[in-house]
Parts: sequence; structure tokens; C-alpha cells
Amino acid sequence: MKASLIIIGNEILSGRTQDKNLSYLATWLNEIGIQLTEVRVIRDEEKEIIDTVNLLRKKYDYVFTTGGIGPTHDDITSESIAKAFNVDLEVNQQALSILREYYKDSELTEARMKMTKIPRGAELVENPVSKAPGFKIENVFVMAGIPKIMQGMLEGAKVHLIGGDPVRSDFIDVYMPESFIAEELSDLQDRFHDVEIGSYPFVKDGKYGTSLVMRSSDAKKLADCKSQMELMISKLV
Amino acid sequence: MKASLIIIGNEILSGRTQDKNLSYLATWLNEIGIQLTEVRVIRDEEKEIIDTVNLLRKKYDYVFTTGGIGPTHDDITSESIAKAFNVDLEVNQQALSILREYYKDSELTEARMKMTKIPRGAELVENPVSKAPGFKIENVFVMAGIPKIMQGMLEGAKVHLIGGDPVRSDFIDVYMPESFIAEELSDLQDRFHDVEIGSYPFVKDGKYGTSLVMRSSDAKKLADCKSQMELMISKLV
Repeated sequence: MKASLIIIGNEILSGRTQDKNLSYLATWLNEIGIQLTEVRVIRDEEKEIIDTVNLLRKKYDYVFTTGGIGPTHDDITSESIAKAFNVDLEVNQQALSILREYYKDSELTEARMKMTKIPRGAELVENPVSKAPGFKIENVFVMAGIPKIMQGMLEGAKVHLIGGDPVRSDFIDVYMPESFIAEELSDLQDRFHDVEIGSYPFVKDGKYGTSLVMRSSDAKKLADCKSQMELMISKLV
Repeated sequence: MKASLIIIGNEILSGRTQDKNLSYLATWLNEIGIQLTEVRVIRDEEKEIIDTVNLLRKKYDYVFTTGGIGPTHDDITSESIAKAFNVDLEVNQQALSILREYYKDSELTEARMKMTKIPRGAELVENPVSKAPGFKIENVFVMAGIPKIMQGMLEGAKVHLIGGDPVRSDFIDVYMPESFIAEELSDLQDRFHDVEIGSYPFVKDGKYGTSLVMRSSDAKKLADCKSQMELMISKLV
């Protein structure tokens, strides 16, 4: 099963805010056997959101969006998603009662009422942190951009997701340059088609090294690959 | 002037590595008046790279790529870019002499020689950190994924970039919920079309607040907007 993430927000594209949702979602999805295959970061612009959602929801099993579902003028995600699905954006009675439980009537301002407006036909996704819910429409999950809230919403989304075998990973760090092991590593990759082998240089305590990462949903092949890699390294040292 | 960034790397999509290049590039581009408008994170797959580069280089003034130009089997960016432009990937004599100055002949292994292969017609982009260069082909800048190297390469790329007025930004942090100021903020945005106003909730020392961010390439309008925002806030407190 494959998923994509659409990060919606000018604050990410201006460099003001460092996104933290991508790596969290990727790791979380791995554990339930769904592969994050593509990510797009786009501006808070209606047409961009509509086009991107409509393209990716056909291309992937699941699409997640983060950002733009708050109460201010720059929060246009829910409205844009409704347009992408060609349905009305309307006050969702369940969302309204959630906010009514949380806020006094006088606190339920027009701005907060905006957060009860959900595309018709969508199911709510619970927000355990600050109440105003996310939602799911077909295979698209619309979540908040604030990492803590997004992470809470993911737990609510879990029931709707069908995954596969979890993707396991293992790694070996070696203090040798990438180029020194490149050839043997390539041979190893040729012998293990079900294991994805990546090579990532690092600097630790002023010493250069390479992280050799193996990823597979087949635990046996992952273990085999690791032994062969250890053997390969022992011959090079 | 508008730019896009293509982050190439399974390690980002698996959640193993937290990207740091997006926010750096965005901020760096702002300063020379180029707007980062879209970012895509894609897998180390030839077809994905070719299609994405060919789409975005027509859509934006500049395209930057990060990742996949090292010596190992999973580094396929240079080859894919050559295919995207339908030119040969060949040993670049200038790149070769750079590496020859840096490495002894015996150290110039086949793996390292891979890093001298550059699409025909491309210009080199200097790598002040670890020598193996990036390159520029038409409006596409191909850079390393390691943040320190990527940042060094950007300085080399600068001479090729034509920007506009730098985008300036300013902000006011208020300790009130977003929803409390949403209506006034929307009115303010309607009055300042050349200023992009964003509203971002935060938690600091356990207190909830909202960061009101203004961005514009017009310094005068930015200052006017800020005074009006201060006035707006003083009325709400």
C-alpha cells in the first residue's frame, strides 16, 4: 500500500517553519506496512490544493494533508478539498457538538464555527489535543499542521487504514568513505532484490563514516542481507 | 522569480533522515528575491526523477535538486537528469581535474570516477566542502543532499541566479487564540493585498499564543501593515 503527503502551507515554503510531519508520518506508516512514496509541499492556494489532491488521490492508496484547517483567513484547506470532491462545505453537526462541549456559547465565535465546516460526506477524525476535528473523505485524510495535533489525529485515522507487512530496517555504520565500499555494495544490492540498500555519509565526532541502511518487509531476507554485509565489511577492513 | 525544489531520496521518505535543505534554501532564496513555490520529495527512481524534472523546469524559473549525486549504486540523479535533457552523461574534464587535485591516482577509484560524470553541456557548480561538484543544466541546479555541501554549492550557484526585490518579513506574537483575532486579521489582509499575512498558533512556556507573520517585497507596505496590526491588537486586548 502506498501513500502520499501534501504539506499545505506558505510558512513551510518561506522557510519560517521547519516541517516535522513528514518524518513522523513516514515512520508511523512504515510500522503499519504503508509506504510513503511521494510528498508535495504547496502554497495555501485553492487551485494548487484542488489539483494536487485530485491528482494524488487517484495515484495512491492514501493521501494525507497537513495544514490549513484552522480558524483564520489563510486556512483554506477544507473549502478547497470540498471543491476537489465537488461537494458542499457545510456545518457538520457532530463537529459542532464536539466544539459545543469544549467552548461556552459566547466563545463559539464565527472564526471557531469555521472549524465545524466539513465537506459533505466526510467522516470526522478525532483531535484529542484541541478538539476541532480533522476529516476523512474517500482515501484522503485531512489533518492539522501542528505536529502534536497531527500526531493525535493519526491515531484516530488508524482504524481506516489497511496496511501490509511492516517495513523493517537495520543498519551498519562503518568508518570508511562511501566510495571505498561502493562496488561491493552494488553487488550486494544485485543479490538482494527484496532489500532496499541505501548508503548515507555522516560525520560523527569529526570522523567521516557511512551509514549502510537496509529496508525490507521480509525479516529473513533482511537478516541474511545484514550477515552478508558484515562479511563484506570484514573483508574490506 | 519562482523556484521549485526536488528532494530526491528514499531516506527522507522512509523517515530516517529529517530534511534540512528545504528551509535553508527557502530562506536563502528569499534574500535574493526568488520565491520557493513548490517542493516535491520523490524516491530514487529514474522515471520519477525524469518526469518531475521535465515538468518543473517548464513551470518555474529555477529548479533545484538535492541528493543522489554520490558514488554509490543508489546515486542515480546525474544519470536521470542527463536522460531528462536527452544528452549523454560523460566524464567532465574539469570535474576530473578537480578530483585529481584532491585524490592520489590510486584513490581515484571507479566509484569516485562516477562523480566526474556530468550531463553534456552542463556547467559545474563548485563544492567547497568535499570537492565532487554539482552542476547546472539550463535552469536546473543539481546539488548534494548533505546540508553542509548543499549550502556550499548554493554560494557557487548564486552567480547564475537573477532575483528580484528581497522578500522581507516581520511578525508580532500575541498571547491570544487565533480564533479571537481571525475576523480582524481577515479585514487587514483585505486592505493589504501586497502583504501576505499568516497566522500560526504556538505554545511557549505552557502559554498558548499566535504568531502573526507578514511578508512582502515592499518595505513601506510591510511597515504600514505592521502599524495597522499593532493598532488592531491594541483594540482587542
